[in-house]
Amino acid sequence: MEPILATNADLAWMLAAFVFVLLMFPGLAFFYGGMVGSKNVLNTMSMVMSTLAITAVLYVLVGYGLVSGPSVGGWGLIGNPTDFIGLTNWLTDDESGATQTLYFAAWFILFAAITIAIVASGAAGRMKFSAWLVFAPIWLLVVYFPIAHWVFAADVDDDYKGGFLLNKLQIVDYAGGTAVHMNSGVAALALAVVLGARKRRMERPHNVPMTMLGGGILFFGWFGFNGSCALGANFLAQSVILNTLLAGSAGMIGFAIVEKWREGHVTSLGLITGVVAGLVGITPAASSMTPIGALLVGIFAAAVVAFLLSFKARLKVDETLDAFMVHGIGGIVGTICIILFASEVAPAGVQGVLFGGDPDIIWRELLGIAITCTYSFVMTWIIAKAIDKIMGLRVDEETEMVGLDTTIHAETAYEIPASSAGHAGGGLGALSPAVAAESVEKSMPPSKPSAQV
Amino acid sequence: MEPILATNADLAWMLAAFVFVLLMFPGLAFFYGGMVGSKNVLNTMSMVMSTLAITAVLYVLVGYGLVSGPSVGGWGLIGNPTDFIGLTNWLTDDESGATQTLYFAAWFILFAAITIAIVASGAAGRMKFSAWLVFAPIWLLVVYFPIAHWVFAADVDDDYKGGFLLNKLQIVDYAGGTAVHMNSGVAALALAVVLGARKRRMERPHNVPMTMLGGGILFFGWFGFNGSCALGANFLAQSVILNTLLAGSAGMIGFAIVEKWREGHVTSLGLITGVVAGLVGITPAASSMTPIGALLVGIFAAAVVAFLLSFKARLKVDETLDAFMVHGIGGIVGTICIILFASEVAPAGVQGVLFGGDPDIIWRELLGIAITCTYSFVMTWIIAKAIDKIMGLRVDEETEMVGLDTTIHAETAYEIPASSAGHAGGGLGALSPAVAAESVEKSMPPSKPSAQV
Amino acid sequence: MEPILATNADLAWMLAAFVFVLLMFPGLAFFYGGMVGSKNVLNTMSMVMSTLAITAVLYVLVGYGLVSGPSVGGWGLIGNPTDFIGLTNWLTDDESGATQTLYFAAWFILFAAITIAIVASGAAGRMKFSAWLVFAPIWLLVVYFPIAHWVFAADVDDDYKGGFLLNKLQIVDYAGGTAVHMNSGVAALALAVVLGARKRRMERPHNVPMTMLGGGILFFGWFGFNGSCALGANFLAQSVILNTLLAGSAGMIGFAIVEKWREGHVTSLGLITGVVAGLVGITPAASSMTPIGALLVGIFAAAVVAFLLSFKARLKVDETLDAFMVHGIGGIVGTICIILFASEVAPAGVQGVLFGGDPDIIWRELLGIAITCTYSFVMTWIIAKAIDKIMGLRVDEETEMVGLDTTIHAETAYEIPASSAGHAGGGLGALSPAVAAESVEKSMPPSKPSAQV
Repeated sequence: MEPILATNADLAWMLAAFVFVLLMFPGLAFFYGGMVGSKNVLNTMSMVMSTLAITAVLYVLVGYGLVSGPSVGGWGLIGNPTDFIGLTNWLTDDESGATQTLYFAAWFILFAAITIAIVASGAAGRMKFSAWLVFAPIWLLVVYFPIAHWVFAADVDDDYKGGFLLNKLQIVDYAGGTAVHMNSGVAALALAVVLGARKRRMERPHNVPMTMLGGGILFFGWFGFNGSCALGANFLAQSVILNTLLAGSAGMIGFAIVEKWREGHVTSLGLITGVVAGLVGITPAASSMTPIGALLVGIFAAAVVAFLLSFKARLKVDETLDAFMVHGIGGIVGTICIILFASEVAPAGVQGVLFGGDPDIIWRELLGIAITCTYSFVMTWIIAKAIDKIMGLRVDEETEMVGLDTTIHAETAYEIPASSAGHAGGGLGALSPAVAAESVEKSMPPSKPSAQV
Repeated sequence: MEPILATNADLAWMLAAFVFVLLMFPGLAFFYGGMVGSKNVLNTMSMVMSTLAITAVLYVLVGYGLVSGPSVGGWGLIGNPTDFIGLTNWLTDDESGATQTLYFAAWFILFAAITIAIVASGAAGRMKFSAWLVFAPIWLLVVYFPIAHWVFAADVDDDYKGGFLLNKLQIVDYAGGTAVHMNSGVAALALAVVLGARKRRMERPHNVPMTMLGGGILFFGWFGFNGSCALGANFLAQSVILNTLLAGSAGMIGFAIVEKWREGHVTSLGLITGVVAGLVGITPAASSMTPIGALLVGIFAAAVVAFLLSFKARLKVDETLDAFMVHGIGGIVGTICIILFASEVAPAGVQGVLFGGDPDIIWRELLGIAITCTYSFVMTWIIAKAIDKIMGLRVDEETEMVGLDTTIHAETAYEIPASSAGHAGGGLGALSPAVAAESVEKSMPPSKPSAQV
Repeated sequence: MEPILATNADLAWMLAAFVFVLLMFPGLAFFYGGMVGSKNVLNTMSMVMSTLAITAVLYVLVGYGLVSGPSVGGWGLIGNPTDFIGLTNWLTDDESGATQTLYFAAWFILFAAITIAIVASGAAGRMKFSAWLVFAPIWLLVVYFPIAHWVFAADVDDDYKGGFLLNKLQIVDYAGGTAVHMNSGVAALALAVVLGARKRRMERPHNVPMTMLGGGILFFGWFGFNGSCALGANFLAQSVILNTLLAGSAGMIGFAIVEKWREGHVTSLGLITGVVAGLVGITPAASSMTPIGALLVGIFAAAVVAFLLSFKARLKVDETLDAFMVHGIGGIVGTICIILFASEVAPAGVQGVLFGGDPDIIWRELLGIAITCTYSFVMTWIIAKAIDKIMGLRVDEETEMVGLDTTIHAETAYEIPASSAGHAGGGLGALSPAVAAESVEKSMPPSKPSAQV
């Protein structure tokens, strides 16, 4: 093997995988945007997309060092950003052909931004956009960067120590079950708690096809997310790609069965939610499962999420777009699957306790979950409360009723004349669109052909 | 050449190509979802997405072996799944850096699932979802897996024989013109025959931009589909990428010319249908055409499809979303183009009869088409009839009239208030969205601000 | 280093990057389609998608040679297409594993087609589709191919000279700031000037989520666009990927600040326009900026675009979808950023004048801008005027009022019954979609259940 050339091919895959993850942003914006009411679509999409701007600036300034820099004091709590400010120290090609710091900076920006974008879902339809623009960067600094350091920063040598969850506790978390999914899910819950419930909780999704496409794009991007964590075009990447496909696909089965049992029907929204729950479940477990194990992870994660969601109406907290259920619970179930039936023959070589593995894995994984979730909930709650005191988190009641798109952004999502929906008369319609549309238009005064265009 | 390193780069491309194909699922769901009425969108999208779940489970259990395992008895009819059950025998890195069995399993799942997803289009708007969930796995087992073995399984050695169409008949079919496109098109036709026509056949597409985007995503994914069949980052892949681009793009020309001639105008739906028809046409032919040949394949395939579609209203069978025309006929035209003007200088080295090639190619290709189409039609018809007898395939008339989204899935696709469509009054609208929307909302009682949210 | 194998990995990345760029076509169609009124969506999307068909044919015939062939007379003005007609001379694998002519042909088709697709935006809502199908190929031949030769064709040796802007003037333009962005922006302006303003200029975007998704897809595709110009999986590609992410993300900041100042709010349309403006700005500059420089390019480009757009209502010319502002001005600002603060430590090794770089860069870049913009404006104006004289560019007034979708394409974009928008009565709605939809349907005569399906 000549590693220089091998890493050149690895880089080809890492570059492609990065680009896949980027599409998750419009995908998530569509996924959440379709779920809210039509008066809050643009606000929801703006919250998601804005995370890229906030994270890009923070990462270039200090984020990269805080996450990936050498642990301050070697304690594994937070990285030292000194060498990484502005990233100008890393503009030289090391001629190895390998994936270098500039790439990883871009990559980490997407991981961080997608995490805070999931948190946004907990605030849908009632948070001031200005408060969001204050909350998001503080949350990244105080919550995300430390947790990401704990689980993403590997020990390099005695002088360059990484995070304590990964290196000291040695948790098994392949691609961010803790730092990304449990963290975002729990934080969305905490933010929803501080904000309080929407005035109209039972609002139905305004555009389910939009959510289906968004979810499908998330599925696509997840291969970049999980696949890039193999750090190259190698056997691990192949195994992870297969397991990600299996768990995401099987998530539909788990969700559909429980939904049929509890509600009596199978919804399309349930199918796509099942996909996402299955994908969340496999995120920590993708390297430690056989293919059959991956199918089970997808089914279990989605089934548990579906079961808990069937009690949603009874909960006091308005966890608006189910981020805690899907990402928090989904991530926890995936981790429990590792504990139970991780397979030693899978690339990670971890053995679950059902197969006779070392029971130590139980407390290590559970402790990892507990630390992540507790820290995330408490700190998010404190940040949200503090911002609420200082500037107010929530819009006033009238703004909420009118909707955030028109009041905050001075926009409306749609300007689609009702005439194209055919209510202008029974004789129009199916067979001759040109004639139909023309007569609709002509029935209005020519000087003002349609009020809304 | 050091093959180990070369295959590492090949793998980088194969991984990316796999991910491209995954996006074809939400793409196809959008493509078909936009074409149906707004009361059947979610049902149509659910049928498409559900294929991933069904196929994932079946492939891990027995599908991979049935398609790619050694031919039972060496007859080339079906693979032996013994070694492949659960795929657990393939969890070891062979250290070659090459694309291994786990990758190919993931890849074959997508090829199989997209095929059955195309079949779904024949049943749009009138099939029970439960019947679909019974039909789809049986169809994969009885129809798809055998045909895929016939054309995708190459002979390895004397003890490991592949499929008879590929190895004995030696048909030229680059990337699945038979197993994927003709097969799915013919099966969609057979399913539509058994189901019978919709009550309202003339239903217009409810959301053409949605279909345009879906078609565009299919174009994108097709480069993964055709490109991955080059099995690496090599010259063949470059040639195939160019030919795929040319045929898909030129498909617009073929369709537009015929549509202008037959209907008097060029529709956007025609342009995107032309793209897909051109892509279907090039799928078997991508390795055997010069660039000018690829342009002609795209033009011819789309022109023939457009011509036949102009008689659609006169057909008795309700081939709902034109899968037989686009995929069945499109695939046949592409294969006829190989027979006629395949170029020896293209990577596959096949010479068409117009250029003096061996006329043997005529009966070999036509026999391949005949076997595939006959088997697919007959078996699909039998499966559909059997399910119809046992549990009923079709929803009752009232359900069909009301639409499948609300009746089967208890969902509606859209909750977009008509107020945003501007019919609340002529004075609202263009210039001040905030004010406009606010007054609409305020004209309703505050305790129930809008009936539909 | 063994270059053969290295280029094999480079090819893997180039193939993936090509596919990313393809998705920009449905992305741009969605981006522009959402911005126009709902009566012109399909026409706008058709104009965008049709560019692929036109460009594919032209490139295979003569375009590749005109752009990339040896400069006629060595003057650097236009390539000689002789060797490239039909591309049949390039069907042989050179066995290097490298990216060869067939790939580059496919790649250049996308670059050319996206350029003319941006030009289409200047004509939205009032141009005959037939006139477009005449204008587009002439424009490619007369305007795009020459300019692309000037900036994309590098000198190979004394017998094979490239374009004068790149080789003689030695402008710094990483990935097409001139040939793609300024060219298309200026041409869109010239076309809008010849066409004249729409009858109703104040038309609001009919579907902002559609535009948001389209813009997000453009962001995704841009990594293929800029990333592929690194010509391989190398350090330059990593640096460019990071800078592209930073500038696109930071574009939101620049646009939002100016919009808040000038208009008093931050719109979602502004955020996504800021992304695109930032991406345009970084296109020429991606190889010559530090990460902090890339953030500033994004902020400045978007801020200037936002500032100028705030005067839009006062302009006489109806630059319909802002292509001149976003692509023309955005590209110019990006180039000015190179002049001012390009960093010698970035891969291109160019030093801006603020850092003490050679002031020669000022006139070289400004001359490149001036030549490109002048040639593009003048030639586009002449072509448009000529077509207007011969066949008429613009639809008649009634057609414009009715909308181009029904009149030209005999289609309507949407057939979404108003009933699904809930105006059938206050008692329907949130809690039981099945019941609600059913009663809506049942309130109509069963023989004609809904006028619009």
